Amino acid sequence: MSESVYKIIELVGTSPNSWEEAVKNVVEQATKTLQDLRIAEVSKLDVKLENGKIVAYRARVKLSFKYGEEED
Amino acid sequence: MSESVYKIIELVGTSPNSWEEAVKNVVEQATKTLQDLRIAEVSKLDVKLENGKIVAYRARVKLSFKYGEEED
Amino acid sequence: MSESVYKIIELVGTSPNSWEEAVKNVVEQATKTLQDLRIAEVSKLDVKLENGKIVAYRARVKLSFKYGEEED
Amino acid sequence: MSESVYKIIELVGTSPNSWEEAVKNVVEQATKTLQDLRIAEVSKLDVKLENGKIVAYRARVKLSFKYGEEED
Amino acid sequence: MSESVYKIIELVGTSPNSWEEAVKNVVEQATKTLQDLRIAEVSKLDVKLENGKIVAYRARVKLSFKYGEEED
Amino acid sequence: MSESVYKIIELVGTSPNSWEEAVKNVVEQATKTLQDLRIAEVSKLDVKLENGKIVAYRARVKLSFKYGEEED
Amino acid sequence: MSESVYKIIELVGTSPNSWEEAVKNVVEQATKTLQDLRIAEVSKLDVKLENGKIVAYRARVKLSFKYGEEED
Amino acid sequence: MSESVYKIIELVGTSPNSWEEAVKNVVEQATKTLQDLRIAEVSKLDVKLENGKIVAYRARVKLSFKYGEEED
Amino acid sequence: MSESVYKIIELVGTSPNSWEEAVKNVVEQATKTLQDLRIAEVSKLDVKLENGKIVAYRARVKLSFKYGEEED
Amino acid sequence: MSESVYKIIELVGTSPNSWEEAVKNVVEQATKTLQDLRIAEVSKLDVKLENGKIVAYRARVKLSFKYGEEED
Amino acid sequence: MSESVYKIIELVGTSPNSWEEAVKNVVEQATKTLQDLRIAEVSKLDVKLENGKIVAYRARVKLSFKYGEEED
Amino acid sequence: MSESVYKIIELVGTSPNSWEEAVKNVVEQATKTLQDLRIAEVSKLDVKLENGKIVAYRARVKLSFKYGEEED
Repeated sequence: MSESVYKIIELVGTSPNSWEEAVKNVVEQATKTLQDLRIAEVSKLDVKLENGKIVAYRARVKLSFKYGEEED
Repeated sequence: MSESVYKIIELVGTSPNSWEEAVKNVVEQATKTLQDLRIAEVSKLDVKLENGKIVAYRARVKLSFKYGEEED
Repeated sequence: MSESVYKIIELVGTSPNSWEEAVKNVVEQATKTLQDLRIAEVSKLDVKLENGKIVAYRARVKLSFKYGEEED
Repeated sequence: MSESVYKIIELVGTSPNSWEEAVKNVVEQATKTLQDLRIAEVSKLDVKLENGKIVAYRARVKLSFKYGEEED
Repeated sequence: MSESVYKIIELVGTSPNSWEEAVKNVVEQATKTLQDLRIAEVSKLDVKLENGKIVAYRARVKLSFKYGEEED
Repeated sequence: MSESVYKIIELVGTSPNSWEEAVKNVVEQATKTLQDLRIAEVSKLDVKLENGKIVAYRARVKLSFKYGEEED
Repeated sequence: MSESVYKIIELVGTSPNSWEEAVKNVVEQATKTLQDLRIAEVSKLDVKLENGKIVAYRARVKLSFKYGEEED
Repeated sequence: MSESVYKIIELVGTSPNSWEEAVKNVVEQATKTLQDLRIAEVSKLDVKLENGKIVAYRARVKLSFKYGEEED
Repeated sequence: MSESVYKIIELVGTSPNSWEEAVKNVVEQATKTLQDLRIAEVSKLDVKLENGKIVAYRARVKLSFKYGEEED
Repeated sequence: MSESVYKIIELVGTSPNSWEEAVKNVVEQATKTLQDLRIAEVSKLDVKLENGKIVAYRARVKLSFKYGEEED
Repeated sequence: MSESVYKIIELVGTSPNSWEEAVKNVVEQATKTLQDLRIAEVSKLDVKLENGKIVAYRARVKLSFKYGEEED
Repeated sequence: MSESVYKIIELVGTSPNSWEEAVKNVVEQATKTLQDLRIAEVSKLDVKLENGKIVAYRARVKLSFKYGEEED
């Protein structure tokens, strides 16, 4: 494994319910085109507000996968 | 929209259950006096412990809103 | 001057033209209610895009002034 | 209270369900050997992925307690 | 206590003698209008110089208190 | 909007005149292949010097857009 | 000296009077069980407030010592 | 040169021997599909351990190249 | 070029008009005594205010040049 | 694996030859009392100088292992 | 004042008694060769230990002064 | 030793072979004009690329020495 190269991309997922679900949405979308995902590190959490209500929990994550895989 | 001015304040919300609920409590309290809230960015998460148990999930957030609104 | 207390607030200014003008807008708005402004430190710069065009240059600044002044 | 000394250790908890539960797992494990836990600050959140699925939510926390207590 | 909301403001205190006194000056000024102050975290220390002498020790602090209290 | 996924890429634009123009150049280049650009956050500003003169203002920006769009 | 290994632990000291004294308290407590202490780096300063008064100056420090020494 | 646009991607290289070799592996892999690479900035170094031995030195780098080039 | 040594100094330029001009002023001043300047990285931007007006845009930059050159 | 708890400690290794060897020295020392080491993240690199010569390359690392293992 | 250029240098002062005195020592030493010192920002505080005692409080400061002045 | 003042300068060394050698080159150059060098802290590592090859490993270091020594 020691000579592999990995790529890290930064994605933002959203969910009306929780940051856990926001990250799950990121992962589901990413697995459509990327294989061998290993880790998703959270780099930022926020919420989007409309009319005084939370409409989306958003999680920005850094996702690492084997370089050479297809990527969107 | 391009010449508006926004203000950012830092609040800490707490909840016995989750950080999502902690942020929801911040937003509910803030909407009593502030209008046009847009985004709440998480700047810190922690938990308060008593007798070896979690008694509160706490989320520190930066909340932006239109400058000129009433503020507590 | 040595025993004064200052307050720092965080504001976001916007301009269709430049970050310099965005900060100028912040200062003009702030001077309506605050006196003795001293320094505005830039903590973040970004641009807002619509239809592939820049619609606003935005500057987030930390503005310091004498504590005890009126503040919005 | 003013002359006490506290120690801060860094632990990583994991959970298949949420970061809140990951921190709860850290606290439960730590209370077996440490008393007088006060606060756990989150220093990093990530998720571990296998076969395109989230297998663990992981929370790295800094845990403070009275220095002189037993520690693992 | 778990559902309270706290606000954090940033103030700068000055003293001709020490940073400890600079923070004490901040706290004394703040308690005139704010109740239930809990913690003041230092975010920056500097000194102001005139004619090659230190004329003020300055401490920038983040002060937390219960949201809903009066604030200047 | 709450279940969308966004991608963030980092680009560096250059201009002989200003950082505003440097960012405009980035945006113009990016819109050739990407749709639904939302925000470009500045992560670094510098200038390139030759023979004691500024030859380029450079702005490094993080650009967010809907994941699934074409990307170079 | 070139092949030694050192350990770094994080402690919080408190004092009613000054941050210098807070660090002195940390060092005195640590020397009961650790030898060959070299440096204590300040990573955070704050004050604890009660009834509008400072009750403790607190200093969080990273303390390095030779690995293999007894540690609490 | 002043109106070019560059892209920055983040890759992780690994080597059983050194971080220098880990970065060399990243560069060799990247040059297969990217031209005009200019600089690789190290953003993180770590080592992977198995059975108490170092099995890989890993270097995370930010690699800049002319935008518009082919990219994996 | 590979064995050269460079030095980095930190300067602050000011201008009544823009941060671009502030950096230009730094560079013009520095080229009087330094040769082979390469890059100036912005580390801080702020504005100085007097009587509610911006009197100076200030840019703090890190300037690199060949070590061994004359320096003020 | 999803409910395990890990501990992170910070150690400094030294070597007269390289940072890679400095980390190897840390790992060798740590494996005497700790099992199941996983990752060592570099948090700081420096060199110690005497009489104008490098006498030690030093690497500060954060080492993670299963909590509950023996630790010095 | 708006077109002046300032230089920032980083110095470390030490004192057996306090960080305030450590900074005073820095300033006294610097004023021997530099004029028009304005501000000294603290970038790091630590203490040096020998035989389990604090032998020096050390303060690292960034000192700004008019560029063109004599400097050591 | 407790009342000495130290200066910190930032240099960049380069080497075709390794970051260790890059720092060695910095130290050799610096010792020509500076005495009593103590520590060189790495603040940045990168590599310069030409034609898809690494042509220089570069290390930016902060070098501390007794203030009052000759400096280039």
